[in-house]
Amino acid sequence: MSQVYALGVTESQKHLQLISIPRREVGPSDVHIHVEYCGICHSDLHHCRQEWGDTMKPSVPGHEIVGKVTQIGSLVTKFKVGDSVGVGCLVNSCRECKPCGHSLVQYCTKGVVLTYGSPLTDGTGHTMGGYSQAMVVDEAFVLSVPTNLDPAAVAPLLCAGITVYSPLKHYGVKAGSKIAVLGLGGLGHMAVKFASKMGAHVTVLSRSEGKRQQALALGAESVLITTDADAFNAARSTFEFVLDTIGDEHDVSAYMDLLGVDGTYIMVGASPKPFALSAFSLIMKRIKIGGSAVGSIKETQEMLDFCGEHGIVSDVEVVKAEYVEKAWERVLKSDVKFRFVIDVAGSLNADTVVQV
Amino acid sequence: MSQVYALGVTESQKHLQLISIPRREVGPSDVHIHVEYCGICHSDLHHCRQEWGDTMKPSVPGHEIVGKVTQIGSLVTKFKVGDSVGVGCLVNSCRECKPCGHSLVQYCTKGVVLTYGSPLTDGTGHTMGGYSQAMVVDEAFVLSVPTNLDPAAVAPLLCAGITVYSPLKHYGVKAGSKIAVLGLGGLGHMAVKFASKMGAHVTVLSRSEGKRQQALALGAESVLITTDADAFNAARSTFEFVLDTIGDEHDVSAYMDLLGVDGTYIMVGASPKPFALSAFSLIMKRIKIGGSAVGSIKETQEMLDFCGEHGIVSDVEVVKAEYVEKAWERVLKSDVKFRFVIDVAGSLNADTVVQV
Repeated sequence: MSQVYALGVTESQKHLQLISIPRREVGPSDVHIHVEYCGICHSDLHHCRQEWGDTMKPSVPGHEIVGKVTQIGSLVTKFKVGDSVGVGCLVNSCRECKPCGHSLVQYCTKGVVLTYGSPLTDGTGHTMGGYSQAMVVDEAFVLSVPTNLDPAAVAPLLCAGITVYSPLKHYGVKAGSKIAVLGLGGLGHMAVKFASKMGAHVTVLSRSEGKRQQALALGAESVLITTDADAFNAARSTFEFVLDTIGDEHDVSAYMDLLGVDGTYIMVGASPKPFALSAFSLIMKRIKIGGSAVGSIKETQEMLDFCGEHGIVSDVEVVKAEYVEKAWERVLKSDVKFRFVIDVAGSLNADTVVQV
Repeated sequence: MSQVYALGVTESQKHLQLISIPRREVGPSDVHIHVEYCGICHSDLHHCRQEWGDTMKPSVPGHEIVGKVTQIGSLVTKFKVGDSVGVGCLVNSCRECKPCGHSLVQYCTKGVVLTYGSPLTDGTGHTMGGYSQAMVVDEAFVLSVPTNLDPAAVAPLLCAGITVYSPLKHYGVKAGSKIAVLGLGGLGHMAVKFASKMGAHVTVLSRSEGKRQQALALGAESVLITTDADAFNAARSTFEFVLDTIGDEHDVSAYMDLLGVDGTYIMVGASPKPFALSAFSLIMKRIKIGGSAVGSIKETQEMLDFCGEHGIVSDVEVVKAEYVEKAWERVLKSDVKFRFVIDVAGSLNADTVVQV
């Protein structure tokens, strides 16, 4: 066992602070990873602020992790010391259930082991994430990162990226598809990049003109200003897909009207409040609405390889460890284009003092 | 033009009464049909009672029609005098839009011409349905009825039957599928028959034991009593499909819990009130919820052929024309197993007096 520095929320504190946490010995199938970068996901805030329920303390978030292999277990075959690797939202699963057997580990029926906040099966505590200097992860849940990509900008692919890549593939977005992307944040901007590289015609839905240039620069063909009633009416029933990345409460039915016959509404942004849906709106155009949660390890690797091939990364603002709480406040105001990434290797150490 | 007797609601009356209505001359592509039987669909009540909006008068409902061809137009090739034929919910469409071109006439983007209540394109009035002695319908919207089946029991296949057959096929129910059917009325009982003949494992969801024997007799393998908390909990996440035929307000999310990973919730019973749905419930198991409206003419013929091959018909209670309002009241109480069918040829004539 070793001790590493991390940013975490303890029982006695509301804010993140520098703490020392244990990392397990490297087992036969484990990889020891020196964390270089860790993306900031909105879930990190929800978790630490207990907005999705009670959490075990200390809470150390972070599931968009890129680093270097520093040690491997005796049975590890996929990695060697020095490799660039990534870790996403999952670090283990039961490996026995039907979804696990079908490369759908993210839907493990016995419950996945999340990168942070999941109880450890041996009863010794809970998982702690990438806001930390190092991690020990079973190689089955470690990804190979293409070396031609900027590692800081790769980090958000491990959650924001795969969360949109997986449903784009699963629900059949392909060359020639017509898709509207709702919400141009961490998830949405990746959806525009992926869908356009897949050859789809991408329209970004936006309440104002402010995001037009950004959307086009990311690969969108057009922008639909949703507050322009004439434009919105003209766009009704013209899309095959709507990808909804909005996590707050919003009028799903209104955006569903954009779908034509046999259209698919994809939800990846989860508002904790239920939304209202009309059965008629599903029936009259045989529309379906489906969800999706991150992606499997196999599919995440496929996505990373796709990114390596097409030079796709996230648009990031790299920040120091001391700035994380400030960054969280800016996340709440959507004041980031499009993802914060913590320079863990360069700024998280014994001297870190988190600004609040 | 000819005049025929029909049951309809006029401007001055709330209840159905005997009226005389015009039927157009038989055009080159038309088929003149002597109506033998017409099923009673819940939509008939909604329409005549203006519960789904204002309707044009007189309102003559009925879209589960079986009869005999009595005259054909000069260009008709599919039918000859004496043929057993059926007419369902649709009697025309634009025939030019993308759905029409893909044998999805029911989703015609310019709006289908419904069998009753749709304005006629030539401005001469509106369509009137099968609660009438005869109809004139373009042959493209006329179905061939297998002669080995009881024509009275075939009638409900034209709406109730195809409304469940189409989504079972579209959403991929097949041999070995595990499906729960919610609502054991006109639609639900046909869903049980179809799905079991397709080789699926069918469970009927019911609030009480009362329907167990009926459900098993229809082809279900089991019945899940939804008010039995232990049984319901044990059934969570065990189904691939839930087919929801309930038209009233109900807790969709609760039944959605029965679906496992990648499950599909199919809605064909449309409550006019929106229902509440949790994005998390869609996301955590990659569940999708989709609607479906009747079926195309092509698919309806496919269903009728399937019924002829497997000896499938609806379970019906045949009633006389004078009894229709009484039957409607019983429909509202779900007091029918499982569909009323009017003996039009045998009871609708100049002497009919509707009981109220």
